[in-house]
Amino acid sequence: MSENNAASATGQAPVPGTPDAYRQFLSDLLGVIAYGELSAFERMSSDARFSPSLRDRAALGRLAVREYDNFERVTARLESMGVNAEDAMAPFQQSVDAFHDRTRPADWHESLMKFYVTDAISDDFYAALGSLLDPESAELIASLQDAGSEAPGEVLFVRLQESLKDDPRLASRLALWGRRLVGEALTQRQRVVSERSLPQGRDAVLSREEFDARIRELFSQLTRNHSRRMSLLGLTA
Amino acid sequence: MSENNAASATGQAPVPGTPDAYRQFLSDLLGVIAYGELSAFERMSSDARFSPSLRDRAALGRLAVREYDNFERVTARLESMGVNAEDAMAPFQQSVDAFHDRTRPADWHESLMKFYVTDAISDDFYAALGSLLDPESAELIASLQDAGSEAPGEVLFVRLQESLKDDPRLASRLALWGRRLVGEALTQRQRVVSERSLPQGRDAVLSREEFDARIRELFSQLTRNHSRRMSLLGLTA
Repeated sequence: MSENNAASATGQAPVPGTPDAYRQFLSDLLGVIAYGELSAFERMSSDARFSPSLRDRAALGRLAVREYDNFERVTARLESMGVNAEDAMAPFQQSVDAFHDRTRPADWHESLMKFYVTDAISDDFYAALGSLLDPESAELIASLQDAGSEAPGEVLFVRLQESLKDDPRLASRLALWGRRLVGEALTQRQRVVSERSLPQGRDAVLSREEFDARIRELFSQLTRNHSRRMSLLGLTA
Repeated sequence: MSENNAASATGQAPVPGTPDAYRQFLSDLLGVIAYGELSAFERMSSDARFSPSLRDRAALGRLAVREYDNFERVTARLESMGVNAEDAMAPFQQSVDAFHDRTRPADWHESLMKFYVTDAISDDFYAALGSLLDPESAELIASLQDAGSEAPGEVLFVRLQESLKDDPRLASRLALWGRRLVGEALTQRQRVVSERSLPQGRDAVLSREEFDARIRELFSQLTRNHSRRMSLLGLTA
């Protein structure tokens, strides 16, 4: 067990703005990201089996493998900090599992939509964190993000567009599902942020009010970006 | 659609021992391997979620990702032959799916055992095919096989050993499960071999009798190897 966790176990919370507080913040952040990626890998590869074609199965499988690669890179960073990756992930297991249990896709299209919506929210969330991190961690987080035509977001977007074109009635169902997903995703993230030490960035000593304001701002941004993405698919957010 | 499949569609079976027959043989072989790897990836990563610890989840996930990498390498070889990978896999989908449906693990230990048994049988099966293949294909097939301490077979063996040590009653249940698995695995492979053109290797023109004798020999070998592996775990085959 790392020193870090030993400190938590004895109830000695690190003082905000200190190296210990940053270490705890980073360990929490990488822990929740790692567990999120591992879970996304498992859920996505399970759902892949219900794809309408072998081509879709292979494509969704490839996206799942990418999540696993991200998981391994994030846990490697934790281990290099001397933090046990399982200890870092454990506090977030329940809330991430609850999110997945509350958003079980009823079919293949809902599954595509789920990964499209949640991957994009993760990317926005990661992008917002950049300024709080040391350069090495910032670079790692940036590299997890979606980019290029082979990127999960782009692959999922194109496939969803095709499906919506083939079946116009799908639009209202997926619009409803998208609203449900974004609600659940933001609720889960809000819970994580408020329960853990996630406010404390590298040098940040924020008052409760400042912190709450920043979080409100972040969540409105996430919601606006989600609406824009739904519009691009021709769906009402 | 490839020329190859166009020929099958018009009912013109290739003549044994000709380049067309070899091409059909290789397309079938790579097709069944590719579909087997894709299915193993999906099943293994789904089962990973039920692992007793995050460490086990990560380890099983890593093995699943390896299956996906194999899948991509085999389909790349099919595409480089001008064969559509989906067309090559399609004939084997039903029998591989039936195998998995008939061998649904009841828990984590049965899941470990399933991948341990079936991966090993695949490796034996691949090894037996080497002499029938052109050098490039032989090299590809050899590279899919289990080797080293990071190899799936070794990882699964060590984890099964640990579990059996912790819970001696598990042995009789897993021994029974092992017998069921090997029976189903061999039945599925036998069905594939006898339905398709798999007897025809690079230069082989075998009579039905010669072919049947070779297959009997291969299957006894697979069964003997399985028994030896069960013994290594302290299980009665």
